[in-house]
Amino acid sequence: MPVDARARPGLDLADLPPADELGAQMHALLAELFPIHRSITGEGLRRTAAVLSRDLPLEVVETPSGTQLFDWVVPREWNLREAWLAAPDGRRVADTARSSLHVLAYSVPTRERLRLDALRPHLFSLPDQPDLIPFRTSYHDDNWGFCLEHRVLESLPEGEYEAVVDATLEPGSMTSAELTIPGASDREILLTGYWCHPSLANDNLSGVVLLATLARLLLGRPLHYTYRFLWSPGTLGPLAWLERNRDRLDRVDGGIVAACVGDAGPLTYKRSRQGTSRLDRAVERALSDGGHPHSVRDFVPWGGDERQFCSPGFDLPVGCLMRTPNMEYPEYHTSADDLELVRPAQLAGSLRAYLDAIDVLETDVVYRSTSPHGEPQLGKRGLYRAISAGAPRPEEVGARAIQWVLNLADGRHSLLDMADRSGVPFAALREAAWKLADAGLLVEEEAA
Amino acid sequence: MPVDARARPGLDLADLPPADELGAQMHALLAELFPIHRSITGEGLRRTAAVLSRDLPLEVVETPSGTQLFDWVVPREWNLREAWLAAPDGRRVADTARSSLHVLAYSVPTRERLRLDALRPHLFSLPDQPDLIPFRTSYHDDNWGFCLEHRVLESLPEGEYEAVVDATLEPGSMTSAELTIPGASDREILLTGYWCHPSLANDNLSGVVLLATLARLLLGRPLHYTYRFLWSPGTLGPLAWLERNRDRLDRVDGGIVAACVGDAGPLTYKRSRQGTSRLDRAVERALSDGGHPHSVRDFVPWGGDERQFCSPGFDLPVGCLMRTPNMEYPEYHTSADDLELVRPAQLAGSLRAYLDAIDVLETDVVYRSTSPHGEPQLGKRGLYRAISAGAPRPEEVGARAIQWVLNLADGRHSLLDMADRSGVPFAALREAAWKLADAGLLVEEEAA
Amino acid sequence: MPVDARARPGLDLADLPPADELGAQMHALLAELFPIHRSITGEGLRRTAAVLSRDLPLEVVETPSGTQLFDWVVPREWNLREAWLAAPDGRRVADTARSSLHVLAYSVPTRERLRLDALRPHLFSLPDQPDLIPFRTSYHDDNWGFCLEHRVLESLPEGEYEAVVDATLEPGSMTSAELTIPGASDREILLTGYWCHPSLANDNLSGVVLLATLARLLLGRPLHYTYRFLWSPGTLGPLAWLERNRDRLDRVDGGIVAACVGDAGPLTYKRSRQGTSRLDRAVERALSDGGHPHSVRDFVPWGGDERQFCSPGFDLPVGCLMRTPNMEYPEYHTSADDLELVRPAQLAGSLRAYLDAIDVLETDVVYRSTSPHGEPQLGKRGLYRAISAGAPRPEEVGARAIQWVLNLADGRHSLLDMADRSGVPFAALREAAWKLADAGLLVEEEAA
Repeated sequence: MPVDARARPGLDLADLPPADELGAQMHALLAELFPIHRSITGEGLRRTAAVLSRDLPLEVVETPSGTQLFDWVVPREWNLREAWLAAPDGRRVADTARSSLHVLAYSVPTRERLRLDALRPHLFSLPDQPDLIPFRTSYHDDNWGFCLEHRVLESLPEGEYEAVVDATLEPGSMTSAELTIPGASDREILLTGYWCHPSLANDNLSGVVLLATLARLLLGRPLHYTYRFLWSPGTLGPLAWLERNRDRLDRVDGGIVAACVGDAGPLTYKRSRQGTSRLDRAVERALSDGGHPHSVRDFVPWGGDERQFCSPGFDLPVGCLMRTPNMEYPEYHTSADDLELVRPAQLAGSLRAYLDAIDVLETDVVYRSTSPHGEPQLGKRGLYRAISAGAPRPEEVGARAIQWVLNLADGRHSLLDMADRSGVPFAALREAAWKLADAGLLVEEEAA
Repeated sequence: MPVDARARPGLDLADLPPADELGAQMHALLAELFPIHRSITGEGLRRTAAVLSRDLPLEVVETPSGTQLFDWVVPREWNLREAWLAAPDGRRVADTARSSLHVLAYSVPTRERLRLDALRPHLFSLPDQPDLIPFRTSYHDDNWGFCLEHRVLESLPEGEYEAVVDATLEPGSMTSAELTIPGASDREILLTGYWCHPSLANDNLSGVVLLATLARLLLGRPLHYTYRFLWSPGTLGPLAWLERNRDRLDRVDGGIVAACVGDAGPLTYKRSRQGTSRLDRAVERALSDGGHPHSVRDFVPWGGDERQFCSPGFDLPVGCLMRTPNMEYPEYHTSADDLELVRPAQLAGSLRAYLDAIDVLETDVVYRSTSPHGEPQLGKRGLYRAISAGAPRPEEVGARAIQWVLNLADGRHSLLDMADRSGVPFAALREAAWKLADAGLLVEEEAA
Repeated sequence: MPVDARARPGLDLADLPPADELGAQMHALLAELFPIHRSITGEGLRRTAAVLSRDLPLEVVETPSGTQLFDWVVPREWNLREAWLAAPDGRRVADTARSSLHVLAYSVPTRERLRLDALRPHLFSLPDQPDLIPFRTSYHDDNWGFCLEHRVLESLPEGEYEAVVDATLEPGSMTSAELTIPGASDREILLTGYWCHPSLANDNLSGVVLLATLARLLLGRPLHYTYRFLWSPGTLGPLAWLERNRDRLDRVDGGIVAACVGDAGPLTYKRSRQGTSRLDRAVERALSDGGHPHSVRDFVPWGGDERQFCSPGFDLPVGCLMRTPNMEYPEYHTSADDLELVRPAQLAGSLRAYLDAIDVLETDVVYRSTSPHGEPQLGKRGLYRAISAGAPRPEEVGARAIQWVLNLADGRHSLLDMADRSGVPFAALREAAWKLADAGLLVEEEAA
């Protein structure tokens, strides 16, 4: 059934605040969230949710410890008061009061005096980056430890040390936050980020902040798709979401995982396992047409939460739009992934790429010509110059777009298909399609 | 049902007149047609048809003004007696007695005295090519005007001008000419050119002349396909043909639009919208195998009459075989597209490319081996040398062609498919197939 | 029905004798077989079979003269006692006592005195390689002749010559040898070589020897596929095999023709007509992963016995794994294709490539994850490091292989498919699959 061709208006990005203003807002929010101690469970997540809730009607979802999530079980809740390691002279060589990275995440409660030899298996450092503290975790094995600068580790004197992990590891729950922004369609796009890392700025706070800002900008706009936002602990959070939504995953037309979106690198789009879904193609088209410096890579089964969405039992078209991928920048999972690494302009640029991709997705319609036999007479509809001097020249993008859209409006080509075949930018084709629809020459094919 | 493998003999091009003789004939015909004033209707078309009818049993088809052709309506018939523009001093700065391009095509009858300011909107020139007269039209909007050299336009003095368009614009009809050359099969190949331009030589008289010469050479030959020739005004002519043939378009296996076939450039094949039809592949193969300097480009929805045949409601495999495409040579739609621009040798070369393509089409048969289990014993049939020294060497094209044809004669490969897979020229494969068929080793598969 | 994931263990190549030992054995066997006079029929084939039978339980198959094999007929049996050509001075300028190549193969019995002029049509030489004796045959036309060095031919004086071919050409049979090594499956892999050439070492004795050694190494091993070895005269031998097995060819999953495997060149894999069968992909993967210097080429319908298996009526996925293809090395079909041309190390390297390909084929299983929803928790199964620092690094091939196998174990990807998509070596993926299967995370999908 044909529907109003303007029923899907796309995002009007003309009313967007200036990029520098958005970047500054995003960085300020990131700086506010940075000091909070987060892990895959615990009060840090709830405090993070409370900050985000100031601007967004979040739903906070708690999944109790012990809940079976496919092959996994939600662990006990970990809450850290403090952790420190005192040298024989009493000097604290590691102390979570200085950096939340100093403790091996999920360390069991410990209060022990031990000699350096016995201590060593509990100490983690980066020999190649001796001035940085690494981020290390032991979520599923009972262990404790400290992460510290290799330079410090090397200088530790013999003697008796005091190791204190003042934490609780008890039945509780794992905290996620969700937000659904309804659109005209019940087809869903998933926008998701992991928020389980402690004081690391690019991986993954930048993604948390980007999603919050994106949600704020989408709220209240007329939308085609229904957007489902998820902030959750890595791996287990998506699994809990997938478990809760198991009987309605057929509504999901695609998704993007946000992380590492604030560093100085160009954008990187990592395709979903499917690789050529509408979601994948919309992101790639938006990056190309938008002039965003970027590269595209195929799916690999390591990285972030796309691993869960793209596991063979789900195989959802969920890609990852980031800047420098994790593992590939030297500050990754170290104390150098800090507020300096993340730049306001890069945050704003990443946000714009997300908006551009959504704008394409929102309006990627399959059209059918109402006048498919021969070319329609454009002149009498004011869609062609009155004095003809031949075909439109290459620089007449609008006129060429009109001809492409009419030629490909056979009910089988969406605007993305047309953009691929014609080489004409998506936005020009869309503009042409809207004009033609206004003139009664196109109808929107159902489906899409 | 197997049929005689020699039932489709192809064109025997050995009896073709020499290229220089053909080129001279074609150019002479073009020179004869050049001065006739043509537009999308009018006596000029009938006079052109009369010239072509000397050699060809043309059927002249008239479509009355007011006839609805899909989204279009056939306009009133335009007949020009004369049109001129006199400067204040009486000098005629534009005059169709000098060039049929001087009048805006389809100008309404006018006899007016007006000052330069009022005249200006009715004057058209080419600032970048100040010595050339442009070709401009206003078929569907009531208007009048003159086209003149920009150099002249710039030198026009103030004062009162006299503008005269002595023409009729009245109910009449639009004139096309058709010719059907029947073949053994009722499958049809369409060969079409637009003939609506006034004194322009390459675009489009060269195509008119090429088709006339091609038709003359095909008449009386044994043919497989039925060839349908059409000379008609651009856009409306094809639409009228499509309307008349609407219930039998499923017979059309492909077509070629001829225009711009006489300039100095190499050949250009513009694929049909389908892009990989048998017609497309035959043309491309003929150009490659025939050693014609050429390039191939994908379909775009602007250009010539292929736009109508390739509209989504018809989507016929109609390509365009030309030299320099319209819009891409500087003389296009100007007074410089004249008898000098079109060269006899180029006309003859284009004709040869058309003949080569038809020769491939005519004989692109799907074969089936009668001895598909293992290789047949060629030696006992005189198809292999008696003293064996190993496989045929690269230079033994005929022997390799025999082996390829036998190997691929599984009822699924046509000779074009075999040429694509083997890299062996089409003609060598065809020769091999004919030898094998004569030896009883191949039969023609129906279909094709 | 899932089956034991280790049911197909692959070849354990760790217990293989050292390459130099294998090479020496192979060359010694080749040297033993070299002097035997072979043709497409005759005692030479039976003597060759007797030598191979020392190590292998061969079945010798005789096909009587006159048997119809599709388009061919088994000729009379040819047995040569001696053939020589004496010059006017009595000097024997060609003599099969010196080289079996000196006689035109299948020469009819002859004892004639004739002058040089009359003799010339019966003499064959290589003007471009004047010191070599060519190999020429006349299997299907009654003829006789001598092959000799062009240098000798050119120096022959006028006078009367004596030409003696002391041979019998009488009803008998054509001799092939077969060996079937049964595997768990009744799906078959065919390994075949032609053995009809006289004293030519690379083409084709090297293939005969390679297959014999390969069979010896496979005998007694647990195998998935059933391997069917065939040594037979070129063209007619495969046709006889195809005729005998006509009603069970649907069991054949692929095959390889062995010839020209001992020269100094790199390996060449000539794909089957199908081109992308499992057999083709396994060979190509084995060559790449195994670091064998090699090239791959598409099927052409000339070469060796693959021509029969790949004829359109059979179209079996039979490729050819060789070193320098026939026709492409200067010693081909001349007296220079001798024991010096074939090198022990090259024979052993070729054998290894065959074993590697079979090893891939044997274990190319389609797997299905038992825990497809999200990633399974590898840590609790000891398949992932306890202290997490992020995704596996590029050098952690085993960890990446595990993630790829899990992600692609959707019941549609075989290990070859996984290797193609992931870029991870087949053996690493297989090792990962076995570990995962041992942990209960994978089952083997039927089929394959």
